Amino acid sequence: MIKIYDTTLRDGTQGEGVSFSGRDKLKILRLLDEFSIDYVEGGWPGSNPKDIDFFKAAADTELNHTKLAAFGSTCRAGSAPEDDANLQAILAVGTPVVTIFGKSWHLHVTEVLRTTPEENLRIIKDSVSYLLSENREVIYDAEHFFDGYKADPEYALETLSAAREGGASCLVLCDTNGGSLPAEVEKITRAAREKAGDTEIGIHTHNDGGMADANTLTAVEEGAIHIQGTFNGLGERCGNTDLTNVIPNLLLKMKKELSIDCDGLTNLTHLSRFIHSIGNLNFPENHPFVGQMAFAHKGGVHVNSVMKVADSYEHINPEMVGNSRRILISELSGKSNMSYLADAEGIDLEAHPDAARKAVEEIKALENEGYVFEGAEASATLIILKHMGEEVEFFDLVRYRSSVEHRRDGGTFNEATVKIKVKEQEFLAVGEGVGPIDALDEALRKAIQRFYPEVDSIVLEDYKVRVIDAAGGAEAKVCVTIEGADREDETFWSTVGASENLIEASWAALKDSIVYGLLRKKKRS
Amino acid sequence: MIKIYDTTLRDGTQGEGVSFSGRDKLKILRLLDEFSIDYVEGGWPGSNPKDIDFFKAAADTELNHTKLAAFGSTCRAGSAPEDDANLQAILAVGTPVVTIFGKSWHLHVTEVLRTTPEENLRIIKDSVSYLLSENREVIYDAEHFFDGYKADPEYALETLSAAREGGASCLVLCDTNGGSLPAEVEKITRAAREKAGDTEIGIHTHNDGGMADANTLTAVEEGAIHIQGTFNGLGERCGNTDLTNVIPNLLLKMKKELSIDCDGLTNLTHLSRFIHSIGNLNFPENHPFVGQMAFAHKGGVHVNSVMKVADSYEHINPEMVGNSRRILISELSGKSNMSYLADAEGIDLEAHPDAARKAVEEIKALENEGYVFEGAEASATLIILKHMGEEVEFFDLVRYRSSVEHRRDGGTFNEATVKIKVKEQEFLAVGEGVGPIDALDEALRKAIQRFYPEVDSIVLEDYKVRVIDAAGGAEAKVCVTIEGADREDETFWSTVGASENLIEASWAALKDSIVYGLLRKKKRS
Repeated sequence: MIKIYDTTLRDGTQGEGVSFSGRDKLKILRLLDEFSIDYVEGGWPGSNPKDIDFFKAAADTELNHTKLAAFGSTCRAGSAPEDDANLQAILAVGTPVVTIFGKSWHLHVTEVLRTTPEENLRIIKDSVSYLLSENREVIYDAEHFFDGYKADPEYALETLSAAREGGASCLVLCDTNGGSLPAEVEKITRAAREKAGDTEIGIHTHNDGGMADANTLTAVEEGAIHIQGTFNGLGERCGNTDLTNVIPNLLLKMKKELSIDCDGLTNLTHLSRFIHSIGNLNFPENHPFVGQMAFAHKGGVHVNSVMKVADSYEHINPEMVGNSRRILISELSGKSNMSYLADAEGIDLEAHPDAARKAVEEIKALENEGYVFEGAEASATLIILKHMGEEVEFFDLVRYRSSVEHRRDGGTFNEATVKIKVKEQEFLAVGEGVGPIDALDEALRKAIQRFYPEVDSIVLEDYKVRVIDAAGGAEAKVCVTIEGADREDETFWSTVGASENLIEASWAALKDSIVYGLLRKKKRS
Repeated sequence: MIKIYDTTLRDGTQGEGVSFSGRDKLKILRLLDEFSIDYVEGGWPGSNPKDIDFFKAAADTELNHTKLAAFGSTCRAGSAPEDDANLQAILAVGTPVVTIFGKSWHLHVTEVLRTTPEENLRIIKDSVSYLLSENREVIYDAEHFFDGYKADPEYALETLSAAREGGASCLVLCDTNGGSLPAEVEKITRAAREKAGDTEIGIHTHNDGGMADANTLTAVEEGAIHIQGTFNGLGERCGNTDLTNVIPNLLLKMKKELSIDCDGLTNLTHLSRFIHSIGNLNFPENHPFVGQMAFAHKGGVHVNSVMKVADSYEHINPEMVGNSRRILISELSGKSNMSYLADAEGIDLEAHPDAARKAVEEIKALENEGYVFEGAEASATLIILKHMGEEVEFFDLVRYRSSVEHRRDGGTFNEATVKIKVKEQEFLAVGEGVGPIDALDEALRKAIQRFYPEVDSIVLEDYKVRVIDAAGGAEAKVCVTIEGADREDETFWSTVGASENLIEASWAALKDSIVYGLLRKKKRS
């Protein structure tokens, strides 16, 4: 049985441009638990005070499978673990598992820690045994293990022995600089495996040479049974081991046993895309297994062959990972998202097969136009409700106008007017803001305020824009996601719009956000 | 000596969203030649008539190192190579090298080609020997070789023998579906190597399992000496072998001999980014070796260590591949681009050290604001010329105003007004268009037309927009690239602008495009 250890929430957030709010992190934690990830590393309490808040919130989250881990370093040279602020911070968050890293490489011991090789062995062993005495499962991350081994094999192996003597349950070999090649990982993992006796060996790689995932699979072939990585390979520099690739390779190609079974694996595409989406990152559509391009056939020869024999140009059946084949660009998938969305909103779609079919069709059509519904459930919900015959139109737009004016001696002005109609009554309002969308938001809420005064507690919480069709010049589209919130009960939702025109895309997402907020209020009153 | 065979222009363009104009393809060909790529596959004349035009234009391009290759399939079952339209089309483009693919897999022979295994061997051998008799160097791509071998090792090896008997100079093992793991590639390449005798073995992999680059390096360890791939891994589905990763791994880690030496390798970052940029693709900044994040240090511990010992968190010295270390996000590189740009424009920057320094500073500052100067040389040139004291301001902007109006019963209207000042004279003009930028372009050229009537032949040829800071919500910026052209002499140039406000970013690029066009005309008159 191979254990999967996810560090998307800790090492993943070291990636440039990656940041998750506390709420986002809890969402991800729950999804990883549902997916049967064995361990989730939530953060580094000693280094980041925000991580402490996360662990507090996570303590109230019921987990069915996942064990939560806190991360940190060994105690400092010359000090005892009992007196170490970092280790005390780790213990204070109360996770069942603690992962600490120590130095394997002479260079780091003498030049970075500025201590002796012997003292380094002492702090590894003492830190592990202290945490063990506090009733924690202790995982030891051997930082720079491969580089350390290349410089001095005996010393690198001694650091593993120190962690083992301290009582670590797993010794994780880290390719911290990410430059090792599979042939090196093969040889060095074999040596570590021999030294570790009955203690588990783990692997933690980085992708600086483009070899992170291959290195992880190579280590598994040499006996590693604990894999650390992040979804979509998020992480510092070129990223960490990509669990989105490694999990299906282990399960489908190498036939390994994991807590995730083939049934669970069909959630891979949704989970991977969801994590990217709430991080507001453009999903790399050429991503193996889960990208929209992963099973897309463009070349005439390939399309022709795939029509004759499906697996002639497919390495696996895309449904095994929850993805689907695309013969034409216009045939995007949508069904798996749909049922997921309906479940989350408590809508019984199976009882309304006709509405479900129409909603799937509309969502597919909109996805072809550039809408991304993952992470924008409120917009999809409005579509489903519409096809179920619910009233989801609170107002008609008569017109809007957005203007940006730049004056040499006076800066830039953003102004918007919105005219709406409710029950034969029209109302025109004007707004201004720091940008054109801000101005449009103000104008819209002023226009409907007299009809729906409850709109006052609904706010635009966050605004994100992505270009979703990078190619094609003038045809490139933008996808806008808006996070709305109700200040009354601190509830949040997301909506989406897409168009070649940024203003039009923003308007669509903005309108959905206000309508969804009003609908929620109506249902609750 | 390992040979590098680039197929960015053929297999690379099979990737979704990847398309290069004929002009773009010639630019890339010249850069690949400068970089000492051994072979460049330019297209598939039998499948794509546009590729024939490219080969015509390429025939007039003087290449110093690169051999140009045309791609195609073997002749059809039941026919002779002499009568095959596809092979005739390949010969007609007159390249010194021809690469043809044939079937290795029983499944494909019987189900896709719908012929017999014997006839398949016949068409492989006859096609190769026919092309050889026409004085071409013939490379044989064994499509689906790994899958074919797994299904029937003997038959797969027989297809290689057929190509060898026909006179192929290289037998390329293709992992067409991209699902093989390194351990399989190791075993199967070894078997092929034994069968091939003194004929070269090549490798061509795809990334569907995330293993393309590792599989290529594994094949090299088993004796492959011809590597097919694309820059940045462009290609169908999840892409091809990524030469941007494989070349530095071969040279720096595996110490292999290539036509590219360590000196040439310092152009890798520029070349890789340039190819993505002219394809209008967002560069994946976490790309190994060449991404802006590849040597960026964010975590406090790492920054601290890197300050003490540079290679403590770096697998190679970033300068070896033309990249640079970034300690803070604001410290982007810019120097290597700068000197490249100045060279291309014929400006002797070294003779103006002060102007060069100021221009570097300004470009760095703008890159930090989101400008991407790769692929937008005209904007950088204007900055250099400004600091050298040249007159590059043809007009002052007094103000502009861009408006988007959406009416329920009348569609969307885009209108812009621009007021400019030249020699104390002011002029106001209005324009409209299919989008706000189009309208702004029309208004600007109408405003300056009375002062610079020669602006009439300057046109906006292409407009591209990318979101360059995906994270950070409202702080996300867009980078706009405009391709301008002079209809009088059919010359093209590109300019760039970036801002949180799409209209402001577009204005900056538009203004530069018109100014650069006017400046060119002034210099030539």
